Amino acid sequence: MARTYNFSAGPAMLPSAVIARAQQEMMEWHSAGMSVMEMSHRGKDYMSIAEKAEADLREVMAIPSNYKVLFLQGGASSQFAMVPMNLLRGSGGADYLNTGMWSKKAIAEARRYCEVNVAADTSAGGFCAVPEQDSLQLNADAAYLHYTPNETIGGVEFDYLPESGEVPLVADMSSTILSRPLDVSRYGVIYAGAQKNIGPAGLTIVIVREDLIGHAPEQTPAMFSYETHAKADSMYNTPPTYSWYMAGLVFEWIKEQGGLAAMAEVNQRKAGKLYELIDSSDFYANPVEKNGRSWMNVPFTLADAALDGAFLSGAAERGLVTLKGHRSVGGMRASIYNAMPEEGVDTLVEFMRAFEQKNG
Amino acid sequence: MARTYNFSAGPAMLPSAVIARAQQEMMEWHSAGMSVMEMSHRGKDYMSIAEKAEADLREVMAIPSNYKVLFLQGGASSQFAMVPMNLLRGSGGADYLNTGMWSKKAIAEARRYCEVNVAADTSAGGFCAVPEQDSLQLNADAAYLHYTPNETIGGVEFDYLPESGEVPLVADMSSTILSRPLDVSRYGVIYAGAQKNIGPAGLTIVIVREDLIGHAPEQTPAMFSYETHAKADSMYNTPPTYSWYMAGLVFEWIKEQGGLAAMAEVNQRKAGKLYELIDSSDFYANPVEKNGRSWMNVPFTLADAALDGAFLSGAAERGLVTLKGHRSVGGMRASIYNAMPEEGVDTLVEFMRAFEQKNG
Repeated sequence: MARTYNFSAGPAMLPSAVIARAQQEMMEWHSAGMSVMEMSHRGKDYMSIAEKAEADLREVMAIPSNYKVLFLQGGASSQFAMVPMNLLRGSGGADYLNTGMWSKKAIAEARRYCEVNVAADTSAGGFCAVPEQDSLQLNADAAYLHYTPNETIGGVEFDYLPESGEVPLVADMSSTILSRPLDVSRYGVIYAGAQKNIGPAGLTIVIVREDLIGHAPEQTPAMFSYETHAKADSMYNTPPTYSWYMAGLVFEWIKEQGGLAAMAEVNQRKAGKLYELIDSSDFYANPVEKNGRSWMNVPFTLADAALDGAFLSGAAERGLVTLKGHRSVGGMRASIYNAMPEEGVDTLVEFMRAFEQKNG
Repeated sequence: MARTYNFSAGPAMLPSAVIARAQQEMMEWHSAGMSVMEMSHRGKDYMSIAEKAEADLREVMAIPSNYKVLFLQGGASSQFAMVPMNLLRGSGGADYLNTGMWSKKAIAEARRYCEVNVAADTSAGGFCAVPEQDSLQLNADAAYLHYTPNETIGGVEFDYLPESGEVPLVADMSSTILSRPLDVSRYGVIYAGAQKNIGPAGLTIVIVREDLIGHAPEQTPAMFSYETHAKADSMYNTPPTYSWYMAGLVFEWIKEQGGLAAMAEVNQRKAGKLYELIDSSDFYANPVEKNGRSWMNVPFTLADAALDGAFLSGAAERGLVTLKGHRSVGGMRASIYNAMPEEGVDTLVEFMRAFEQKNG
């Protein structure tokens, strides 16, 4: 089999050009006499790789100079604890928006450390909408406001940036980072697991405003303190060096594609093609309100769930794989991150039309 | 330049056969249509990779069935906090042996959580010896006894397994795991960062006796609880999938070499050649007492430190790289983990003799 169109929600497809370059550099990086995996993280070759990756990410996202960029381990699940540990500053509470499975997990973890004020909750409607700004029950004394701009499982994405006034805004951007331009200065903390739009699993990017660093209580594990990592340029201990390198290749690739404006244009078009087909059909359905639909994760169901198996095997025959929906939602889910070529979406749309004609 | 003999202390050299196989499988693993990096960790292809890696590690180390093997993130530095968090069980204190820089770091982190009884301390002698069993000031009520069997920076390795009675023995084996056979049943917890003898940085192996799991207090971050990961077979959240795969290739390679008995034989011989040269010379010196010398990390100094630069550049010309010693020790350090071929050590010994003849 050749390389497929892989609609996995994460770990997810990477650009073929990036994989090809990693393959070519695997036995020996440039003239270093070794693989990137074998380099000391303190050596000048690896330092140049790490610094270039950060510089490229700063350029691509236009990250202001008063923000630190940290290359960490542990995934968003570790950030669920690190955010309250570092940001509470003795305050008793924080605001959270509950818009899906990942918000719920962040809230559950935060409750170990503080009073959580759920400022909006769309669970009653099955997480099929984004709450309106006017409906948010925000607390002006909250240590921060946490939300999940894109819910990977529900396929729900905010079409606006919540206004939190002086309260730092914290965002789990695991499944939307780098998919479109963003005003970083509006955020206190942005974090993202790498395995969707950044690179291989095992790397977590944290972008944190400098004034929010240095306030973790004494009993915080050193590895869970933003200050530890900020002071050491993410090299307090050995970082996930190879994943950091791969992320750097992805950042270079994004620059070559024209940056985030270009990514956004393609991403909007890719998602639009899928939603258009779904909305024009009685055979396929997506439950999310139109203004809250994700560009990155498109869940959909077939009119008859008994056809799910035939859909998946038919798709696989055409090289369209990992389309099965999350067990909590059922049906299908097409995750169409930056690395999914538009031809992959076109091929999926074509297959969906043909499948409907045959079975609808 | 071709591939070098890389004496880095970590991230370190990997077997060339392993890198070559990873390169070959990079664009597409078997007939999966994608790279291992792009696979969902819940899919059957990746599950087969993960399960085989664990099975091979269990076989190679003869891990008893009442031990869980966890594939985590965060390095030994995270274990420095996780060990007390999970093992204290309300007890006020734990015993630690202080035999080098890594012991010191483990002790500093543990002090956030409990009273640390330093049961042995070789710092006064510059960390150049292992403390004798009879000299250990152990506390029968300690929650556990923590030690570092091999100190990567000082090049000091225990030549015996400390006897702790009913108190669980906890070992940071980052730089000695898989270098020789081991009786796992004598330990409560064994942990190791991957980047020396296991695989790429970003993976941490924790081998933990089942009765020690499930006792972390409520305010422990979910990601810092052994129970979280044990219950989920290390897939509570997305694991570092590619590093786990690479570790699996290394475990296979160890089996092909004849397992840990064969590794030990070669490792002892490699280290022996270096120490023999150093001891037979007035030009080179190693400060560690003979019974405490590491098989994995061989620090040495030149009689005249002004020659260090010429030594390093002469070595590099022969493809012998990353020999500069740790800044806290100075001089040189040859880290000779499993993946360093015996020819690499032979070439180094030959160069050292020639350099001494010319400059001694």
